[in-house]
Amino acid sequence: MEVCLREAERIDDLQFGLKIIQNHKKFCFGTDAVLLSHFASIKRNDLVADLGTGTGIIPILLSAREEQSRLVGLELQADMVEMANRSIGLNNLHSRLEIIEGDIKKAPEMLGPNSFNLVVSNPPYKKGGSGLVNPDDSLAIARHEIMCTLEDVIGAAAGLLVAGGRFAMVHRADRLADIICELRRTRLEPKRIKMVYPRIDRPPNLVLVEAIKYAKPYLKWQPPLIVYKEEGQYTEELLEIYNMTGQ
Amino acid sequence: MEVCLREAERIDDLQFGLKIIQNHKKFCFGTDAVLLSHFASIKRNDLVADLGTGTGIIPILLSAREEQSRLVGLELQADMVEMANRSIGLNNLHSRLEIIEGDIKKAPEMLGPNSFNLVVSNPPYKKGGSGLVNPDDSLAIARHEIMCTLEDVIGAAAGLLVAGGRFAMVHRADRLADIICELRRTRLEPKRIKMVYPRIDRPPNLVLVEAIKYAKPYLKWQPPLIVYKEEGQYTEELLEIYNMTGQ
Repeated sequence: MEVCLREAERIDDLQFGLKIIQNHKKFCFGTDAVLLSHFASIKRNDLVADLGTGTGIIPILLSAREEQSRLVGLELQADMVEMANRSIGLNNLHSRLEIIEGDIKKAPEMLGPNSFNLVVSNPPYKKGGSGLVNPDDSLAIARHEIMCTLEDVIGAAAGLLVAGGRFAMVHRADRLADIICELRRTRLEPKRIKMVYPRIDRPPNLVLVEAIKYAKPYLKWQPPLIVYKEEGQYTEELLEIYNMTGQ
Repeated sequence: MEVCLREAERIDDLQFGLKIIQNHKKFCFGTDAVLLSHFASIKRNDLVADLGTGTGIIPILLSAREEQSRLVGLELQADMVEMANRSIGLNNLHSRLEIIEGDIKKAPEMLGPNSFNLVVSNPPYKKGGSGLVNPDDSLAIARHEIMCTLEDVIGAAAGLLVAGGRFAMVHRADRLADIICELRRTRLEPKRIKMVYPRIDRPPNLVLVEAIKYAKPYLKWQPPLIVYKEEGQYTEELLEIYNMTGQ
């Protein structure tokens, strides 16, 4: 299939015959996106939304995990939407994956309230307003809470999901208290957590959380995910996740 | 020193010359009490309260970590209070450790509101009212939320602490969402968490949490505590904690 590449863009190979276009001057997906795509519970016939989809990496990886799913990626930045749409063409996914330009804060009214089975998000992590970021910078928008806060993302997920629908997010471990309280406030009950430790002797840097709309409280923990062995190589679990999800 | 032992009681050796009386027909302390005694931040001249002190194990271990501290253990069951008081005599700690009979729900009025630097608790973990427990049974009272709930323990800690005072608790990992929300509701900000994993490939079963009264939000995580190696022996970290805290 023919595809146009713009300046600074490249095509990266995922597995299962999947590919993705990335621009090395803008935000490229990281381990967190791959971990979230593996952590999320996707089921046959799910309607899935990814909030702040960027390159489209998460819905592209999820599309391979469940071939009967339909997926929507919402992205604020027009140039990212255009690039992600070319990745969809490259993977021949137009029939079941759509990238829509829009603001997470308006996601329920744009995409349809109470209609998604699964919402996923790898949102900007860093606190906005630090003074160090340039709000015109697409990298800054992808990384910092400039255009949307944690509360915006969780509020949008709560609005999009059907009762019993699942919300899966990756975020910084140091935000877990905020995440849990905000989930409960919006009636998304935290049901499953996996902590991600860079090494077995280090504090966790990331947390993977699944919440279920209107569910009863019961929090199930998963074994820790250790990313690196002491010697600096990836652990077997991380390598397995990369194989399974495609990077 | 002479000490009276009742039926089914024994003296167990802790380190640093410490000893404790336990009754093998009643609740004996477990790893969780030792982990909490090691996790809590105790400082010189701290006034410390242990809510639901049982045998007195936690204040006895803490007394050795900071010799300038003064400690109070609150315990509902009269026979446990009497036994813990004999352990205090055995360790010659009467001048700075007191065991008081009373209900956690009345702790602030009994012990003095807004007056403690550190409150610790290894409260009953299991949900009350399951029908399987006998409320007259001292083991059941120590293990189940019969006489006090998680909310009672956190509420008592919030009432006892000075502004900036620390609350350290060990609890079941599956209650973490409840713990975090209740801490925030009472203005105890979760500041430090350590997950306890029985093995590196298992979900965590316990969580150690430190909250600070009226503090600003920022949650610091610690490396995971792994209790057993794959072959079933204790890990080096666990053995080190047992050496340091005395078991």
